[in-house]
Amino acid sequence: MKIAVIGGGAIGLLVSAYLADHAQVTLYTRRKEQADQVREHGITLKRKKNVKKVKVDAKVLRLDEAFVHYELIVVAVKQYSIKDIIPYLMKAPKHTSVLFLQNGMSHVTLAKRLPQRTIYLGVVEHGAMKETDDVVTHSGVGITRVALFKGGDLISFQRFHSDVFAFMQENDWYEMLIQKLVVNAVINPLTALYRVNNGEIIHNSYFYKTAKAVFNELHAVLRLKDPTAYWNRVVDVCEKTAQNHSSMRKDLQQQRKTEVESILGYILEEAAKRQINTPIIHFVYNGILGLEDSGSEGR
Amino acid sequence: MKIAVIGGGAIGLLVSAYLADHAQVTLYTRRKEQADQVREHGITLKRKKNVKKVKVDAKVLRLDEAFVHYELIVVAVKQYSIKDIIPYLMKAPKHTSVLFLQNGMSHVTLAKRLPQRTIYLGVVEHGAMKETDDVVTHSGVGITRVALFKGGDLISFQRFHSDVFAFMQENDWYEMLIQKLVVNAVINPLTALYRVNNGEIIHNSYFYKTAKAVFNELHAVLRLKDPTAYWNRVVDVCEKTAQNHSSMRKDLQQQRKTEVESILGYILEEAAKRQINTPIIHFVYNGILGLEDSGSEGR
Repeated sequence: MKIAVIGGGAIGLLVSAYLADHAQVTLYTRRKEQADQVREHGITLKRKKNVKKVKVDAKVLRLDEAFVHYELIVVAVKQYSIKDIIPYLMKAPKHTSVLFLQNGMSHVTLAKRLPQRTIYLGVVEHGAMKETDDVVTHSGVGITRVALFKGGDLISFQRFHSDVFAFMQENDWYEMLIQKLVVNAVINPLTALYRVNNGEIIHNSYFYKTAKAVFNELHAVLRLKDPTAYWNRVVDVCEKTAQNHSSMRKDLQQQRKTEVESILGYILEEAAKRQINTPIIHFVYNGILGLEDSGSEGR
Repeated sequence: MKIAVIGGGAIGLLVSAYLADHAQVTLYTRRKEQADQVREHGITLKRKKNVKKVKVDAKVLRLDEAFVHYELIVVAVKQYSIKDIIPYLMKAPKHTSVLFLQNGMSHVTLAKRLPQRTIYLGVVEHGAMKETDDVVTHSGVGITRVALFKGGDLISFQRFHSDVFAFMQENDWYEMLIQKLVVNAVINPLTALYRVNNGEIIHNSYFYKTAKAVFNELHAVLRLKDPTAYWNRVVDVCEKTAQNHSSMRKDLQQQRKTEVESILGYILEEAAKRQINTPIIHFVYNGILGLEDSGSEGR
């Protein structure tokens, strides 16, 4: 089986390295240097004390790429890069399946426009850190949830399953994405704002209050069916990743753009549509955008 | 003229050093080491390239201190230490005047209980940084506003006036304190949360939006008579102290308790009394308390 993975970030590298145990993987990157590096040396996958080199083919993503012969294309770019990837996917074969692995919700609208018959949406609950262009650390073992978005359900993701890289089939893609969105919307911006690890959000009683306040506004907008279950999920993720730095915190540390648009920006759009007041989410959203602009971490 | 200054922090040292040009000043400190240091070496006052040594007497504040022979007692401790100072002032002569130099409003209630006939309230708009126990840097030249709170208006503060340490007599102590409170309530918590200098609050367009959001809640609670004038004051202070770190930011950097209780805590109490919803101020208040507890600056 041939799989194309688009995106040479932490998630793209991680997924490529693990899928390569079960399939013939080609990683598509934006920069030629990274493609050369991966093609020559493979991907180095670190997990605790294990270090493993995995052979993976790599190419620069070009406009003339037709993605022939692939059974599956995994889209592992950040939410805000999805727009740039769509033109490439438009040219890929209709019978090739596509799996999106983004945070937030806004990629769903773009996914609808694609010609491919079978599209999956997934959420990655692993911790991963890109060390260099060809080295990724699997810093937190979680699972990857996958749900069919449209089409014939051609691929059983169970075949890629392993103890440290598990897949779980979900029935309701909306519910799945919303759960991840709620977790991300609470943990990511607050850990980035306070510059603390995920655990402090629930172990510091004042931060806990602010997390609950953000959550209550999320609930008002999204009308969660079982809010207690959603909140428990937030707490659970904070506990399981207590020592980790969230992706948004890392993005600000490294003066990169964050995913705040696709997380809190989405919530604010929904809030506007439904005419629901969300002063705290609005405040936090502007705070993160301000920090992106000021690049003040570590001053 | 004999003046007692209570409090060996940045403001206590600054005020002692400048008043010593016009009066015989005794600085009362909490720690014996600081009193010894100041009594032996005087106070070193730094401003830009000027360095000046000022002779100032110093004592440890003791419960048997009767404050006899002083014409004026200047209370220059932080808002949250006012409670501890009241018992000492209760024993001071009734004819001695008292000048309070605190942020916030909560010291006003405590000042009412004092036996002294003449009480002034003041706000210090200088930037000052305590370097060591006997060295203070005058990092921003502003003014000290003074208003009579009760009594006979016995002291003309104009007599202590100098080009770099000016005094201004104000008629309405409430208006004066509220103006300072509004400036502090916007600038201090946000600069502490974002870890930026004062100028970024108005020069970063996203931070500006969050400052305006905090201000709007302040206005809803305090019902400011001329909100535009108050907002312009905030902008003006940000511009004039653009490169400075606010006291709250410095407090968190040095893992000290902040004045958030006497600033945002006061606003929240007023909001509760008047049943006004202030979600953003509440969020920011808990964020600052959380940062005090986590001591996360620089992690």
